[in-house]
Amino acid sequence: MKKWLLAATVASTFAAQADEGMWQPYQLPAMADELKAKGLEIDAKSISKLTEFPMNAVISLGGCTASFVSPKGLAVTNHHCAYGSIQYNSTADNNLLKDGFLAKTYADELPATPGSRIYVTEAVTNVTDRVQQGLAKKTGKAFYQGVEAKEKALVAECEKEEGYRCQVYSFHGGLEYYLVKQMEIRDVRLVYNPAASVGKYGGDVDNWMWPRHTGDYSFYRAYVSKAGKPADFSKDNVPYEPKSFLKVSAKGVSEGDFVMVAGYPGRTNRYRTANEVQNQFEWAYPEGKMLRERFIEIIKETAPEGSDERIKYASLIAGLANYAKNFTSMIEFYGKSSMLDDRKQREAELAAWISKDSERQAKYGQTMSKLDQLIKQSKAHQERDILLGYMGYTTMLPTARKLYRLANEKQLDDMQREPGYQERDMIRFKSSIERIDRRYAASVDKAVLLDLLTRYAALPKEERVPALDKVFAIGNQFDAAKLSKTLDRMYAKTKLGDQKTRLAWLEKSVADFKASQDPFIQFAVAMYDTDMAEEKKEKELFGELMKVRPQYMDAIIAYSKEQGKPVYADANSSLRVSVGHVKGYSPQDGLKAVPFTRLEGILAKDTGIEPFDAPKKQLELIKSKTYGDFYIKSLDSVPVNFLSTLDTTGGNSGSPTLNGRAELVGLLFDGVYESIIGDWAYDDKINRSIQIDSRYMLWVMKYLDHADNLLEEMEIVK
Amino acid sequence: MKKWLLAATVASTFAAQADEGMWQPYQLPAMADELKAKGLEIDAKSISKLTEFPMNAVISLGGCTASFVSPKGLAVTNHHCAYGSIQYNSTADNNLLKDGFLAKTYADELPATPGSRIYVTEAVTNVTDRVQQGLAKKTGKAFYQGVEAKEKALVAECEKEEGYRCQVYSFHGGLEYYLVKQMEIRDVRLVYNPAASVGKYGGDVDNWMWPRHTGDYSFYRAYVSKAGKPADFSKDNVPYEPKSFLKVSAKGVSEGDFVMVAGYPGRTNRYRTANEVQNQFEWAYPEGKMLRERFIEIIKETAPEGSDERIKYASLIAGLANYAKNFTSMIEFYGKSSMLDDRKQREAELAAWISKDSERQAKYGQTMSKLDQLIKQSKAHQERDILLGYMGYTTMLPTARKLYRLANEKQLDDMQREPGYQERDMIRFKSSIERIDRRYAASVDKAVLLDLLTRYAALPKEERVPALDKVFAIGNQFDAAKLSKTLDRMYAKTKLGDQKTRLAWLEKSVADFKASQDPFIQFAVAMYDTDMAEEKKEKELFGELMKVRPQYMDAIIAYSKEQGKPVYADANSSLRVSVGHVKGYSPQDGLKAVPFTRLEGILAKDTGIEPFDAPKKQLELIKSKTYGDFYIKSLDSVPVNFLSTLDTTGGNSGSPTLNGRAELVGLLFDGVYESIIGDWAYDDKINRSIQIDSRYMLWVMKYLDHADNLLEEMEIVK
Repeated sequence: MKKWLLAATVASTFAAQADEGMWQPYQLPAMADELKAKGLEIDAKSISKLTEFPMNAVISLGGCTASFVSPKGLAVTNHHCAYGSIQYNSTADNNLLKDGFLAKTYADELPATPGSRIYVTEAVTNVTDRVQQGLAKKTGKAFYQGVEAKEKALVAECEKEEGYRCQVYSFHGGLEYYLVKQMEIRDVRLVYNPAASVGKYGGDVDNWMWPRHTGDYSFYRAYVSKAGKPADFSKDNVPYEPKSFLKVSAKGVSEGDFVMVAGYPGRTNRYRTANEVQNQFEWAYPEGKMLRERFIEIIKETAPEGSDERIKYASLIAGLANYAKNFTSMIEFYGKSSMLDDRKQREAELAAWISKDSERQAKYGQTMSKLDQLIKQSKAHQERDILLGYMGYTTMLPTARKLYRLANEKQLDDMQREPGYQERDMIRFKSSIERIDRRYAASVDKAVLLDLLTRYAALPKEERVPALDKVFAIGNQFDAAKLSKTLDRMYAKTKLGDQKTRLAWLEKSVADFKASQDPFIQFAVAMYDTDMAEEKKEKELFGELMKVRPQYMDAIIAYSKEQGKPVYADANSSLRVSVGHVKGYSPQDGLKAVPFTRLEGILAKDTGIEPFDAPKKQLELIKSKTYGDFYIKSLDSVPVNFLSTLDTTGGNSGSPTLNGRAELVGLLFDGVYESIIGDWAYDDKINRSIQIDSRYMLWVMKYLDHADNLLEEMEIVK
Repeated sequence: MKKWLLAATVASTFAAQADEGMWQPYQLPAMADELKAKGLEIDAKSISKLTEFPMNAVISLGGCTASFVSPKGLAVTNHHCAYGSIQYNSTADNNLLKDGFLAKTYADELPATPGSRIYVTEAVTNVTDRVQQGLAKKTGKAFYQGVEAKEKALVAECEKEEGYRCQVYSFHGGLEYYLVKQMEIRDVRLVYNPAASVGKYGGDVDNWMWPRHTGDYSFYRAYVSKAGKPADFSKDNVPYEPKSFLKVSAKGVSEGDFVMVAGYPGRTNRYRTANEVQNQFEWAYPEGKMLRERFIEIIKETAPEGSDERIKYASLIAGLANYAKNFTSMIEFYGKSSMLDDRKQREAELAAWISKDSERQAKYGQTMSKLDQLIKQSKAHQERDILLGYMGYTTMLPTARKLYRLANEKQLDDMQREPGYQERDMIRFKSSIERIDRRYAASVDKAVLLDLLTRYAALPKEERVPALDKVFAIGNQFDAAKLSKTLDRMYAKTKLGDQKTRLAWLEKSVADFKASQDPFIQFAVAMYDTDMAEEKKEKELFGELMKVRPQYMDAIIAYSKEQGKPVYADANSSLRVSVGHVKGYSPQDGLKAVPFTRLEGILAKDTGIEPFDAPKKQLELIKSKTYGDFYIKSLDSVPVNFLSTLDTTGGNSGSPTLNGRAELVGLLFDGVYESIIGDWAYDDKINRSIQIDSRYMLWVMKYLDHADNLLEEMEIVK
């Protein structure tokens, strides 16, 4: 029960106990007293209003968070969030990634990488009733599709206003639905980034690690038409003037200080059941880790160091390795934690509470067992499903399937189509088909696919998919050499590796696909009925889960409410606020991570070799103790990064970390290694977010990069 | 000058500044005020008297330190110091190493491994005048041999009393000489050791590391004849009754507390010149690291995992790896430190001080330049010398040389012989020739030698040794394959691999050697004249250094004395006292090592796999929070290991760490990784020794191992 209690006792002992929770802004006014006691100086109500300061200064980049820091649309985010744009503008002769970049005037600013967006949230509307209306009696797939249709209608209606992007987010597994309306700024420009040897200092070695010394910040600017509306890039566009912006603190924070963060955390699993936890940590993570590590091996074997193929797969390798490390941490800390027992106990307590009251029994009496049964059902074929799922990491198979699916979806009215295949999705869809060239080599694609199909072939026959068996001639006697030859033929023959050919398929009909001689197109056609049947089964199940999981969450919320305790929803990429404190932790018995790193730590780590190759001038500034305006006596230096108890996860990257007056004191960019498991359970003792300190950012801007124009433009407060 | 000042400002700012210094006991009374201010409660004078409490309770095991903890000769030291004896008494059926061992009665105690000794220091006499008398005008080799002859005479005189072992130690490079007289107890018995999974917890992984959780202690007992004299093992022997013994503290120490340690530190280089420092860190350590790492590779390639050969070389691999790690740390922290600049500055300051006074100029004006010139001379052939030196890691070559040297030395009177070849050395000499069997495989010996000779052959001709070139037919055209065949023939033909044959050579004459057909004996004979000529050159040089280095130290001491600052001598395996405090440190910017680890850290580290495989019962005791009498509220647990600023080095292992009342509060067993470079320069910020806490030792004894008889025997104080 420990974990559950931690989560649940928020209201009564908020200040003293836990900094857990990713709150929807509307929940904050009810917690005003606790927030004030923690250190919030501005009115809690103001944070709940999305169109007022400070929340309207917090923006989404889609996957990352940013914030406006000037009246002229200047936005600060992480270096790693702007990485694509920096890379896009870099050439061998003018390497912005390596050397850094600073636009001294508006005219010098560079277009961000194509597709870059700034989303300004303008409205969040509770649409639960509208979504659920008339669906009460529907079940399974009908319920799933009913919800989907409502969502699509709400989105379509909302997006009628040009320049807006809308989305319905489900909370608590479908207990509540909110329609989020965001202005979609399409002209985004790169204003300033430090050299990668500052912005990515420590690189992958330090990823998820403390102590940290990363200057992970960069600046964008939002541009709109002269009429103030979102517009494609144009020289005539003007800087967007946000309704408000954040002041940047040159005073910063100290150990123990209150901090809060507003951002777009992606996904957490805090309310998953004990069965789900056990399966995930004892089967899914170990299996996923093994597959990822195997893929990395295969790619490295097939595409040797220095080959063109290896360059194409560098980013996939990094992504696979990143989550292999993530899963490794998950497994390690699960083994050390009492998470599973805690979940079981929390379920037992909930069950006891339900059983004590006949009304509750009527409402929730069957919930837990139904949920467990559906979860069991969803895992029934997981050994097969994980292999089929990981085929998504190959290129040809899923590309062919997506293209053929599109041809099929196009036969329907736009509103009837599967999300992802609607007209509003086409720009992204096309670009995903286009950019394959830079990330695909037939030799590697085949090697990975062969490995997966070999594993698949080893499954018992009843677990295998007849259509797939047929395509690859997989029977009871598996012949790997034969399959390898089959794949060789397919990759030799397919024309999908050619961009023009691929793009042409975007426009073709179902009949064209059926007539094609391309082996991967033929594969997609051959699999289609099976794929659709599987999807239907999935939707049946998901529809049921979308009915039961909200009941489960409703029980939890009711149980907590009885104790006067608010409940936050799992992260779902929507705007959230976390509150916490600047605080170290003990990563290991006998060691303490102190909450601040210092400039001298850069000197100590520096080897001159990437990723520990700080600019020479920076090393000189540190050696000569040029601390300037940002010297902190208690550290006898300038702080670089700091730790906080803020409850965050992936998607929070670039989020402004604010003090009690909502001044920007840092940018959140990572969590510590011990926090990775925090997506499943927040532990006060070890959950720590890592921020770049605003004082370090200002120090680099002032003394190293001389970004005086931006220092002038921002409002810097002591 | 920073480092120099740290060392030199001891007297004026002792309490506040530095815990640097390995003091000769006689120096302590002069520092009484500072020691008292630091926290010493007993009289400083008492520590200077070797035949009184507490110093007469501190004993040497030769390479390790121990201390008496009962009136019946019970002695506590490190588990790793008693390791050989535990291993010696272990069998497959009765594995004391694995299961631990506890003698419940005297009769159950087991003989320690053959050759085990306990040395009780009874007198330390300043013999400087006696050594130097009549040698003032001698130079070079004549001076070297003059000193050696005096030392041998002093030792012979001292050892006339049966049961004693005597040795002359030179201090400050020959400025002072002390004769140390130790009672040599030959009947040493193993009384109690915890299981290796306690005593060696963390093993080589945690070696030199913090956080640490090692129960590194074991108990011996000293036995003597009924007459109270040292005697060989006999059932009739009785426990030795030391004049005093240490009380064991159950109260222990807290952060910031005063501690001191008495022990036998091996070797430090705190007064080496800037040139020596630079050469050592920029050439010798990198070269040594490379050779060691290469040897490990060669041994592993030649003796595959699981082979009999590999078992024989396990301990050599561990030794090579241990110092490869040591050198790696040296190189790393040298790069991060200002050591070289500090030395240069200290030499410049010393030079300035000398130049200010004509008397000083007359006395020390030439010292520094002479010293530098001799050092330069000693390094002239270092690229060759290191290769010849590392040939000492092979077996056949040095064994043959030692045997032939013995035959030659035996032609001389005992007192004329080279130290190491005198009658008093013969027991050790023989045992070193005997035990080769367990550590030798011709295939590995050949592979390592081939590598060294190949490197040697690549040296310019003028650096090579004609006699060596001749034996191995090394010319300007080097043919590795041919050399390999030559070595194959030599290893195939030699009979030195056979123990009986080897031992027979101990008794043979020079003529026998000259007539031998054994290729390695022939090698030794062929090299002999060259070896002797080289040794003569070395002694010439050493003799000069033995005259100049004392001048240099004399200048340093005079300079320091003028400022009222005492100077400690570099460690030389003689008895020393260090004083310091319980204190953590920052191993890295953003991290703090706290001074105590706790029982819970064992749980957290435990994987069930060696070396993190604590006994199940211990894990249960920790899980159930069975802290018993040793619970410390501030830690909410029992302390396991602790950090101190004590200035120590190899040889201090097993030393009793004492509180201000000279009660045993821990056993020193290691230093942290960042301290390895401390042999060259003590840095207050990072030099830390690691102790097992007396409370952890008592906790294991009481709750895990039920060593009630020993708990009863010791005097345990609160």
